[in-house]
Amino acid sequence: MQFSERIKGVKGSAIRELFKVLGNPAIISFGGGNPAKECFPKEWAAETARELIAEKGDVLLQYGPTEGYMPLRKAYLEKVLPPLGIKDATIDNVITMTGSMQGLDLLAKVMINPGDTVLVEEPTFLGAIQIFNIAQANIVSVPMHDDGVHADELEEMVKKHHPVLFYTIPTFQNPTSKVMNVETRKVTARLAAEYDMLVIEDDPYAALRFSGEVMPLIKTFDTSDNVILLTSYSKTISPGLRVACCCGNAELVRKMVIAKQGSDTHSPNLNQALVAEFINQGKMEEHLRFINSVYSKSASVMIDAMRKYFPEWAKFEAPEGGLFVWVTLPEGMDANEVYQRAVKDKLVAFVPGAPFYTKPGICDNTFRLNFSAEPEERIVEGIHRLGDLLKEMRG
Amino acid sequence: MQFSERIKGVKGSAIRELFKVLGNPAIISFGGGNPAKECFPKEWAAETARELIAEKGDVLLQYGPTEGYMPLRKAYLEKVLPPLGIKDATIDNVITMTGSMQGLDLLAKVMINPGDTVLVEEPTFLGAIQIFNIAQANIVSVPMHDDGVHADELEEMVKKHHPVLFYTIPTFQNPTSKVMNVETRKVTARLAAEYDMLVIEDDPYAALRFSGEVMPLIKTFDTSDNVILLTSYSKTISPGLRVACCCGNAELVRKMVIAKQGSDTHSPNLNQALVAEFINQGKMEEHLRFINSVYSKSASVMIDAMRKYFPEWAKFEAPEGGLFVWVTLPEGMDANEVYQRAVKDKLVAFVPGAPFYTKPGICDNTFRLNFSAEPEERIVEGIHRLGDLLKEMRG
Repeated sequence: MQFSERIKGVKGSAIRELFKVLGNPAIISFGGGNPAKECFPKEWAAETARELIAEKGDVLLQYGPTEGYMPLRKAYLEKVLPPLGIKDATIDNVITMTGSMQGLDLLAKVMINPGDTVLVEEPTFLGAIQIFNIAQANIVSVPMHDDGVHADELEEMVKKHHPVLFYTIPTFQNPTSKVMNVETRKVTARLAAEYDMLVIEDDPYAALRFSGEVMPLIKTFDTSDNVILLTSYSKTISPGLRVACCCGNAELVRKMVIAKQGSDTHSPNLNQALVAEFINQGKMEEHLRFINSVYSKSASVMIDAMRKYFPEWAKFEAPEGGLFVWVTLPEGMDANEVYQRAVKDKLVAFVPGAPFYTKPGICDNTFRLNFSAEPEERIVEGIHRLGDLLKEMRG
Repeated sequence: MQFSERIKGVKGSAIRELFKVLGNPAIISFGGGNPAKECFPKEWAAETARELIAEKGDVLLQYGPTEGYMPLRKAYLEKVLPPLGIKDATIDNVITMTGSMQGLDLLAKVMINPGDTVLVEEPTFLGAIQIFNIAQANIVSVPMHDDGVHADELEEMVKKHHPVLFYTIPTFQNPTSKVMNVETRKVTARLAAEYDMLVIEDDPYAALRFSGEVMPLIKTFDTSDNVILLTSYSKTISPGLRVACCCGNAELVRKMVIAKQGSDTHSPNLNQALVAEFINQGKMEEHLRFINSVYSKSASVMIDAMRKYFPEWAKFEAPEGGLFVWVTLPEGMDANEVYQRAVKDKLVAFVPGAPFYTKPGICDNTFRLNFSAEPEERIVEGIHRLGDLLKEMRG
């Protein structure tokens, strides 16, 4: 069997492959980006699913509109966007998706011709790299710093490459947990207008803030309608439901709808109805307070353990939110080798940094730790084992 | 904003656009392919969703594997496929999808380079045409007859064009409701082997049989592992859940998994769990008996009304199953014009035939009627109005 050119070179997602390892409960996993199971609104979801199907089953079990389940689109438009500073959107700017990943796939379909240049942060979400590779894009990158990408470097790359789009996770970036500063957000919006460049503002983590100041969305500085916001409910409610919403240029959203007709027809109604109910019942605020208290604690536990057990030459910073701690080892040290030994000898998993980079070999001395999926005592135990391994590997 | 070449020429799905019309409850709709709402297992789904989330919420609300929720993959492999004559498949042949439409999208991604030739039945499912257009395939076709495509015409086209794939709905084809004969099924499987051509056997309607003999799947004649079967649960359980399963070549399925990682990460777990429970609780057989009694009745009511109210020159046949009646008007008569007037003057909707054809203008004198979505009295009333309109338009 002959496969298409676009799929030939694409490897499976490093994180998805981790699922096989994670099947072994003895493994302490800092891989993935799984929410803590105590953070799922389980009882609420069980009862609400029953009520929704009993009361609205005729609609929810039937085909639904590709644009999305209207009560969710409305809840997003009227209740989610305004507090984020987006007050002039209309229903035509809003589409729902089967997870934000689908948003990226739809945007790749409607925006990218093979060979087109797209600009990403380096490192960045490996799922985005995979999608842009399948779209046969020419991927160029701008480096991440402690306060995200730098405006001058960003502008230089945009000027030089005229990318069709810039993909960014400005707040609690995956994998680095860094936050883009306000000035760069403004510059990003200006560049979107000046170069007629689409900015994909992927924002799954901003709601998971434990400390520091809330940052304005790039979308709030958008004067050209060239910034599209992706809002995932995977980290805040449940990834297993696969629900996300999006706010962008109406013409672009219309093209996404056509692409979505040919992707999965529409997102499942029940799942969208659950998220709509969660928002409309006003449960989000209290729920976020709860999960942020959980994750803030887990992050502290992990950072404290890292300070205690990691060698000094392993560099990292305490995140202000999100789900990850990003670790940089000394130059020349191979995080993939650490990973192999960690899984085999120490029964600890994480994600080596390499797949977050656009090209192999750029930065093999980095790795990502997730702190949301394991209970505290296993976080401490896993970090202890990992610290021991690092010391074993480099005196 | 500049959109990609692949999306520029693609129009929205004619059926999806119908949803806007269908918002008006005064319209009697023979468009879409919506199951009857009394055919949804509503009470069961409400109670089972509650139980599933209460008992397995930690798993169902969490990220799941891209290959699919294991209990559903197993149920499909062990309980669904063997009675269909597929007994030697393994779990690596099985992937679950967010509706069969996603299966087509994934197959297009992993099989089709721009310019590659794909072969379809003419007319065929308009969603497939849309997907192959977005994939920038060169679409060629083989005509449908009363017993499906003909083996000699099929072989001729395969020999001439060496298509990378042949897309077929062999049983109760959409839109014609025709059934491919056994001989052609065998030839199709032979051609798949001889020409190393993928055959996509899309099978959403076969379970909806009211009369006539059950036909063997093309997949049961597959000696080369080049036939991939798509099984949708949209027509038998609920389209709103967006769940389908697929059985094909393990290497191909592996590529689909990679493409699915970059499409929606995984299908929602709860929805897959509901379908798995439905199968595992042995509810399907009785449920199919029930819905087939409903649809068989609706089809009869529609056919009887058509015989009574339609002019003689409107040609159609009583279907043995599925959801549709296909109508052919005299040459030169434009079904799109009928459609415009039907919606405006008679408040009756259906799908004109044109979008089911691979090129504009091939066969504008056809249209598709769906009989599953309206109650009997509205079927009779709608057919009466439509018959009147046809007579008004052509003496």
